[in-house]
Formats: sequence, structure tokens, C-alpha cells
Amino acid sequence: MENRLAQTRVPIDALLARRWSPRAFDSGRAVSREQLAALLEAARWAPSCNGDEPWCYLVWDRGRDAQGWQKAFECLSENNRKWCKNVPVLMLSCAGSIFGHSGKPNRFAQHDTGMADLSIALQATTLGLIVHQMGGYDAAKARAAFDVPEEYTPMAMIAVGYEASPDVLDDETKQKELKARSRKPLETRFFEGAWGKAVEL
Amino acid sequence: MENRLAQTRVPIDALLARRWSPRAFDSGRAVSREQLAALLEAARWAPSCNGDEPWCYLVWDRGRDAQGWQKAFECLSENNRKWCKNVPVLMLSCAGSIFGHSGKPNRFAQHDTGMADLSIALQATTLGLIVHQMGGYDAAKARAAFDVPEEYTPMAMIAVGYEASPDVLDDETKQKELKARSRKPLETRFFEGAWGKAVEL
Repeated sequence: MENRLAQTRVPIDALLARRWSPRAFDSGRAVSREQLAALLEAARWAPSCNGDEPWCYLVWDRGRDAQGWQKAFECLSENNRKWCKNVPVLMLSCAGSIFGHSGKPNRFAQHDTGMADLSIALQATTLGLIVHQMGGYDAAKARAAFDVPEEYTPMAMIAVGYEASPDVLDDETKQKELKARSRKPLETRFFEGAWGKAVEL
Repeated sequence: MENRLAQTRVPIDALLARRWSPRAFDSGRAVSREQLAALLEAARWAPSCNGDEPWCYLVWDRGRDAQGWQKAFECLSENNRKWCKNVPVLMLSCAGSIFGHSGKPNRFAQHDTGMADLSIALQATTLGLIVHQMGGYDAAKARAAFDVPEEYTPMAMIAVGYEASPDVLDDETKQKELKARSRKPLETRFFEGAWGKAVEL
């Protein structure tokens, strides 16, 4: 949808401008293994501090492992379950808090896992898929259900699939879906000269 | 350079495949304000949990604020200073730990700041610029020097500029620059069915 494009004062890369986080998924279209491979390769090649690649991912493909998918689905918040019932693939990114090379704490693990997660979202956009990342899930339940080791922190639950008409959504979710995308003014987040002093562009 | 491309089992988006983290910067070429605007807009439109946009950035443009740039430069580790001496623009991303809408802790702040940082790196790649993110700097020194508020955590120090020949680097850094890029096998990070069980692709 045209009104889904990022509104920017100068043009940005089309892939970055097009990526957004829809909720209307097509329950009838699966994600192929080749598409999945591309999503995971994109994450794999994300940058990371000291090249530690501190992320691990769990993947649930409804068409191959309906039981695993259902267990993941049941970790989601009630609001997210409303629309995730149509999602063919769920993933969970986890951030490893210990550097592989030194055994010391890696304070960039969550930051770097975010970079891998965005890589998945952008690769999905390239493939004509959609991605919606969620923080709204029970992380303790997910950890217990899938034996996530203590040194890994569950980060984003990620829905992947094809876009459908907003009409597949319940009324409340549909209103969210149709709302114009927005961001806070650039001046409130990007500083030059001193903290809080807006960059002059 | 051709051997800088990500090596993947299936093709990934060209922008994702081309992005890497060079150290050889051209000291003679500045980043324009319009380019800077595009980098910041890319970060601004990154996704975030609850749309909180938990990131703030400090920007130091050597051509406009040599003193600020120098102060930022002096926060870098000795190894990073070796090549950052040629960098025209430095930035620091900071992650805000408190949700704006609720005043409660935002456990996704660092993750989401990572997504904004990768957006900058990808937008730079589109523009023909290069970006190198660093964890190697003194965060306490940066906090004190630039009055970073307590609720913000300094994350990545980001070098932005134009690529130069690796010959501008000292010998040790040049060896790092010319090394083939690599990642751990996909099977060690991406699981399906159970933690540690590789996705079958």
C-alpha cells in the first residue's frame, strides 16, 4: 500500500522505506524452504561485535511441525494471537550474553540480535513476504517450552508469511493495520554538538 | 571488492550481501548533509517495540565540529583510533531503557537500537558510503564527555565515510581488512524442532 511507505525528508533506500510490520497474514500461503534459507542467511550475515554472531533462532513452520508451531503460538499475548492464527512461520530470536571467544559478558548481544532480526525483515520484504516482530509473548514460558539455555535471552518473536487483505483481521486489529505509519520528529532523537541539540540538516 | 560479498547458499538481497565493515576510510571525502539526513531517516524508520523508538544518536561531523569529533575520537580504543583518524563522521547510538508511553523498563531498547544502527549501515551502503560499527570505546568516558543521561546506554560508535584503498591502513589493520569475510555455519545458530537441532534446508 502506498501510504505504508516511510515518509522522509530525503529519499531512503526503497527496501528500508517499504518494510513495515503488517498483521494481516494469508493463512493459505506457506513460506518455502528456499525462502526460509534466504531469511536465515540474511540474519547469519548481520554484523556483530567481534564477529561473535551472538544470536540463535528457533523456527516453527506450521506446515512441517504443527505441534511445535502451536506451542510457540501459545506463548503469544492474547492480542497477538488474534492475528497470528494466520501466520505460517514463527521464529524466536535469542541473544547469547557470553562472548564465544573470551567467555566474558557480551554487552552488545541484544543489540546485535536486533541487527540480525532486521536483516530477516528486510530479506522478507525483498522476497515479497511480510514480517511482524513481537515483544508481546511470555518469554519465561517460551524458555521453558523450548529449553532455551540460561545464557540466551529470548528477544523477538517473529511472524513471517504473505500479506492478506486487512479484512481478515478483527475490527480492533484492522483499525491498527490501517492507521498511517508515523515516527517521532527527527529532531527529538538525533543530536549534534550536545545531548538534546537537534542535528541541523 | 568481489570477495567482500556475503557467501550464502541461496541468494540474498544485494544490499544485505554488499554491506560490510571496512576500516580503510578516505580522509579527503566528506559526508554531505543530505547523505547524513538519509542515514538518520533510515534509523528513524526502523521498527521498535510498541513504536517506542528507544534510540538517540549523537553525531560528530569533523568538517563542522572538529573539537566535538576529537572528543569522540578520544573515547575510542587504541586499535580503533589507528584507522578512525581518517573518518569524517562519527556517531554514537544510545538505547533508552524506559518506555516513553508507560515509564516502565523497555527490555527491547538495545535490540531495537541495533535495528536502527543496521538501518544506517544499509542506507550508507546504498549511498556508496561505508560504515564500521565499534564496541571498542570507553562508554563511561563518552557518557561523561557528552552528558548522556543515565537512562540511556551508549551502544555502537559508528564510523561513516567513503572507502579508500587498504593501503591507507597500518600493516596490522590492513591484514584484517583483506581477510576473507566469514560466518559460522548456519546449522550452529538456526534451530527447528528443538534447541540445538539444525533447521533442515
